[in-house]
Amino acid sequence: MIGLGTVGVGVVRLLEQERHLALKKIAVRDLKKERGVALPCELTASVPEIIEDPEIEIVIEVMGGEQPALDFIRRAIERRKHVVTANKELLAKHGPELFALARDNGVAIFFEASVAGGIPLISTIHKGLEANRISAVIGILNGTTNFILSRMEEEGESYQSALARAQKLGFAEADPTNDVDGHDVAYKLSILSALAHGRFVRPESIYRQGIRKVSAADIAQAREFGYRVKLVGMTCLADPDSAGGALSVRVHPMLVPLSHPLAAVSGSNNGILVRGHAVGEITMVGPGAGQMPTASAVVGDAINLASALALPDFASYFQPEIDPTWAATAEPGDFRCPFYLNLSVSDVPGVIGQIGTIFGNHDISIQSIIQRGVQDRGASVIILTQAVLDSNMASALAELQQRDFLLEIVNAMRIFQPEAIHAP
Amino acid sequence: MIGLGTVGVGVVRLLEQERHLALKKIAVRDLKKERGVALPCELTASVPEIIEDPEIEIVIEVMGGEQPALDFIRRAIERRKHVVTANKELLAKHGPELFALARDNGVAIFFEASVAGGIPLISTIHKGLEANRISAVIGILNGTTNFILSRMEEEGESYQSALARAQKLGFAEADPTNDVDGHDVAYKLSILSALAHGRFVRPESIYRQGIRKVSAADIAQAREFGYRVKLVGMTCLADPDSAGGALSVRVHPMLVPLSHPLAAVSGSNNGILVRGHAVGEITMVGPGAGQMPTASAVVGDAINLASALALPDFASYFQPEIDPTWAATAEPGDFRCPFYLNLSVSDVPGVIGQIGTIFGNHDISIQSIIQRGVQDRGASVIILTQAVLDSNMASALAELQQRDFLLEIVNAMRIFQPEAIHAP
Repeated sequence: MIGLGTVGVGVVRLLEQERHLALKKIAVRDLKKERGVALPCELTASVPEIIEDPEIEIVIEVMGGEQPALDFIRRAIERRKHVVTANKELLAKHGPELFALARDNGVAIFFEASVAGGIPLISTIHKGLEANRISAVIGILNGTTNFILSRMEEEGESYQSALARAQKLGFAEADPTNDVDGHDVAYKLSILSALAHGRFVRPESIYRQGIRKVSAADIAQAREFGYRVKLVGMTCLADPDSAGGALSVRVHPMLVPLSHPLAAVSGSNNGILVRGHAVGEITMVGPGAGQMPTASAVVGDAINLASALALPDFASYFQPEIDPTWAATAEPGDFRCPFYLNLSVSDVPGVIGQIGTIFGNHDISIQSIIQRGVQDRGASVIILTQAVLDSNMASALAELQQRDFLLEIVNAMRIFQPEAIHAP
Repeated sequence: MIGLGTVGVGVVRLLEQERHLALKKIAVRDLKKERGVALPCELTASVPEIIEDPEIEIVIEVMGGEQPALDFIRRAIERRKHVVTANKELLAKHGPELFALARDNGVAIFFEASVAGGIPLISTIHKGLEANRISAVIGILNGTTNFILSRMEEEGESYQSALARAQKLGFAEADPTNDVDGHDVAYKLSILSALAHGRFVRPESIYRQGIRKVSAADIAQAREFGYRVKLVGMTCLADPDSAGGALSVRVHPMLVPLSHPLAAVSGSNNGILVRGHAVGEITMVGPGAGQMPTASAVVGDAINLASALALPDFASYFQPEIDPTWAATAEPGDFRCPFYLNLSVSDVPGVIGQIGTIFGNHDISIQSIIQRGVQDRGASVIILTQAVLDSNMASALAELQQRDFLLEIVNAMRIFQPEAIHAP
């Protein structure tokens, strides 16, 4: 094993009870650090000592980060070690290369822990739903932001206050950028794309919007309409009948209908919906992070790998088929869904009419519009639209912003409407 | 394939698109019946023609029922065919024998479709959660009753009216006994016990209570307290630290907290929670029945089996280890959970005090008690208790029934409190 941080210690704990699998060596940076767990084997400060050991068949990588993990895994694969990794950043950025290298060397990369922590997503898609063409994977893939949004709804807290709470409880890091701006979800979507659609997606080509702008007022307003605000990530075939075609890969806050299983994903849990042409929709909910859930995924992979070692040439059976090229991505503007808008406008006659006209010009049908209590500065207008093209909404909002009556676009959030993406 | 009913036709449809797998023969009772699907191979009225064909490697059984399916599968296994089956009744009643026979003959039985339709539960537990000791599997395992209970809540319908609606829509059979009295769930619990705990449970030793007594009034009342009524099946280690020990296996209506993922399982969907010592709780939601979801599971099994055929002696790797003896079951009275009670009592002074005394004598703590509008006959008393032993509740209710003030125990339902069963 390379690395002995939180997850590594969890792996050591779980393997204590395992009879058929043993750690031979663990590489760490600091040999003297207290680990809080009985060590089952010798520590080493030298990763090559592990990679070059001919007795070692499986390398577990739980150090995280891009480098030097990338070099270590490349060399392990070249030495024909099977790899178990929890490293989402590494796979999202270098998946095509690593899976091609693994195939050439006849070894397997198992990566259940890299997405959605303890939720056994990869075995589900790769084995359980084998008979399906998967058209979409849609989920709440970041526990930190889900915790923050849940707090904001349940306690009426501000984003800042809920973030501070998450930091205090250890759910969020001091610099929360990676979570709250959607980078973490983008990495996971790249991996899920490989799993569901056979190709990784460059993280930088994923349309990404975080939760910093979501307010407790928007959450309360959404709730009144029967929705809950969630940070939703998705990777969908742009054309559901065209496997191998472009993917629509995005992460942004969405209003999820309260009746949908994803709305019930609370606190730091993750939830993932998989849509297959035969099965319809399957949703899985569980801990998306944390020491033991993540270790559960790592050790599960290791056990499955170890018990398969007796089978000759098994890697091709276990490894999802992943193309060594990056996926093409659809234009973000081509995405269709309804919108929730919170506008602050001057309280002058005819505003609603003007808004309606602008929207009409951009092919946007309004489903409901509510003008709320006139304040000092003007009035608040809340609009729910029918499903519209993202690009049309963007141009309508740009036009709105030219108008004198518009004080501020307080928020514009998409509404999760599964049937608008594409039906099962 | 043996059988070409609804699921069989779904299997034919899915296999149309499959390049690596072909049906060679389908056994049917009536060779002349119109099947509404293009047939990919010859039909035969003779099952032995399939079982004795040396070219056929996998037998798919979708005929259902106990006999003659049992004889067919026995013979197929003896001829060293691998088996894919959707037959829950068969496995629940004869699982120990069939799995022992399969092991002796070096073949595998795949049975994903036998529980929870399209939800890939078996790959999840057997592979995805391999590193976990599973202490409990708890779920909404019957779509018909969940549809009825959902209708009763959403429309305020009576049980009879919701049942009639389900029958009209094809979700319930003319004789609904199998669904509404929990037999179907009991079969599934036997199979889930084998999967999660390594032993089948005799269906007749499963504590079983159906939904016939649930009223729209109880559902509305539960809702006010923050619960939704669901038919919940569970198979749990009676002692969470004692794998191999007795199992607590039960199905009955329960009040599920609205915040719990199982409460969000609506309509004819199924939902299953799996608790593992490392991962905590994973919940899966999806279609528990229906032609294509069930076919998705059958064909998924067939593809996984077929692609493994190239691996020598693979059956032991793929087959969950199942003991050939039946599981011991815990005393139903030893189960602990809070209760919801709806009592009809005479409107005489001191009734609440007397109820409190009786409950106290049986070690039952009351959490809340509400006396509702006095009617002609008397008053309605709604009680929520703390977690209590089933046996204590039974004796308290028996004592209550001796008292003159008690007109009727309108309903007594258990409350789903995961932490009372045992914590992760």
